[in-house]
Amino acid sequence: MKKYCFGVDVGGTTVKIGFFNVDGTMLDKWEIVTNTDNGGEAILGDICKSLDDKLAKETIQIDDVPGIGLGLPGPVLSDGTVLQCVNLGWGKLNVEEKLSSMFHGVTVKAGNDANVAALGEAWKGGGKDYDDVVMITLGTGVGGGVIIGNNILTGYNGGAGEIGHFHMNDEETDVCGCGKKGCLEQYASATGVVRLAKRYMADNDDTKMKEFGDNITAKDVFDLAKEGDQGANVVVKQMGTYLGRAMGFIAATVNPQAFIIGGGVSKAGQFLIDAITDTYRNVSFKACSEAAVCLAELGNDAGMYGAAALVK
Amino acid sequence: MKKYCFGVDVGGTTVKIGFFNVDGTMLDKWEIVTNTDNGGEAILGDICKSLDDKLAKETIQIDDVPGIGLGLPGPVLSDGTVLQCVNLGWGKLNVEEKLSSMFHGVTVKAGNDANVAALGEAWKGGGKDYDDVVMITLGTGVGGGVIIGNNILTGYNGGAGEIGHFHMNDEETDVCGCGKKGCLEQYASATGVVRLAKRYMADNDDTKMKEFGDNITAKDVFDLAKEGDQGANVVVKQMGTYLGRAMGFIAATVNPQAFIIGGGVSKAGQFLIDAITDTYRNVSFKACSEAAVCLAELGNDAGMYGAAALVK
Repeated sequence: MKKYCFGVDVGGTTVKIGFFNVDGTMLDKWEIVTNTDNGGEAILGDICKSLDDKLAKETIQIDDVPGIGLGLPGPVLSDGTVLQCVNLGWGKLNVEEKLSSMFHGVTVKAGNDANVAALGEAWKGGGKDYDDVVMITLGTGVGGGVIIGNNILTGYNGGAGEIGHFHMNDEETDVCGCGKKGCLEQYASATGVVRLAKRYMADNDDTKMKEFGDNITAKDVFDLAKEGDQGANVVVKQMGTYLGRAMGFIAATVNPQAFIIGGGVSKAGQFLIDAITDTYRNVSFKACSEAAVCLAELGNDAGMYGAAALVK
Repeated sequence: MKKYCFGVDVGGTTVKIGFFNVDGTMLDKWEIVTNTDNGGEAILGDICKSLDDKLAKETIQIDDVPGIGLGLPGPVLSDGTVLQCVNLGWGKLNVEEKLSSMFHGVTVKAGNDANVAALGEAWKGGGKDYDDVVMITLGTGVGGGVIIGNNILTGYNGGAGEIGHFHMNDEETDVCGCGKKGCLEQYASATGVVRLAKRYMADNDDTKMKEFGDNITAKDVFDLAKEGDQGANVVVKQMGTYLGRAMGFIAATVNPQAFIIGGGVSKAGQFLIDAITDTYRNVSFKACSEAAVCLAELGNDAGMYGAAALVK
């Protein structure tokens, strides 16, 4: 019986490494710097060294390690190939084969970081009581991950869960980072909430948001809304309406048992959940409208948990 | 090696029965009447008799039949239980166990008829060259079926693929069959196309649609649009825009390799495909915008093929 596994969340700045029992208990975690010099050629070697150091320190034999899971910042094909990871400097690479060949031939499984974080939350976080979950991450952008029967749904070319680019509004004039207009991300991300707040402030004076001016954050908006500020509540309502409608589309497509809401904006807590759930339940087809809507629980550790889940 | 299987598509009026090689070649098909008297209590027995007659006629032993697949007009849980099939008169019933006990103990697998038809098209129809497909059926309503890796995605309570009830329009005043307003089905079904045509005719005179008046059908609208009628083309464009946007939501959720368009409205052919693909490719996130968009090929046989695929 194999006993331990590693869940490695590779970001553009740091590599987060989690050391787990195969039952999913995190025994230790640490970070190393991501060295993106020379097309990121040192990254996998640095990971190997860090894992070898850990095994040596704990006097664990490689035979007790069934594998390494990797979360990577880019699309990952089902055979373990990444076509490009811009933030790491990588071009096309079969990262599963490469890392396995460098690390004692153990099994390596890789996935897109957003999907892997969703798997982590489904396994040990907000979704641990459910089999089929959709995670929605509200950060600088809006990401998604679809977990069916405890497996990641990647889609044909890694695009499953790219819900931030749902086309929600024909009337939008600002351009999304993707180059199109009217994407969900333009309303439901931290940046999107700020954009809606600035629009509100441009037309209205009846809000304390004005005291923050151009430096207002999504957190400020939610804090003011919780205090009863009318303008902030209008903005939260707009954001919740867009996101709730989007959840209706997701629900009528894959009919999950639960939605898990994570990312920085989710720190607004149950107030946010209420704002989005209201619209979601109202506009969704009845059979798809009853999914639980929960907060993520693992924060920045979700990627490590999910990576470990790939090889548990 | 088992050689034959049955694919049975149970409708409210007729039961379509297909007799297949396990490689998916349809050897014969026929229909029997659906007897819905007394809560549909005779339906399964009638099916058994028809199958037994066929086996006797062909002098096939039951040992050569690995199973029976069933498509049913209602949600089917993963254990084979239907909660209700209104059109058959059935209440809660584990139809897999029941039919197996009545038919020599062979394996029975059941699924919702729309999902099963999608599986049939994915296996032997328009989607036969693809693994991950979403079928969209444009009939009286709009149905959907999501096939991932050649398996039906049913969702937590059978609601996956209920895309006809995507909430597309906040401004709608008419009520959908589901009780809500602004559902995709109100624009993209045969009924929906007629509704849009009537709205156009109420406000405009520059269209030959007026010659059909209240009796206009979706086919009439598409025929006129193909002939260049301006009003009919406006209606087709409206319909295609709603459906193309909906496909963008589906694509960014499950990222299929192909969409298969079926149902009566799909007889409009490539003209329809062009009308919906235009919007779909324009509004979708790039990674999800390249799915093939194909016409269904099996017509009313799709349900039998898909039912057979459940037990092949």
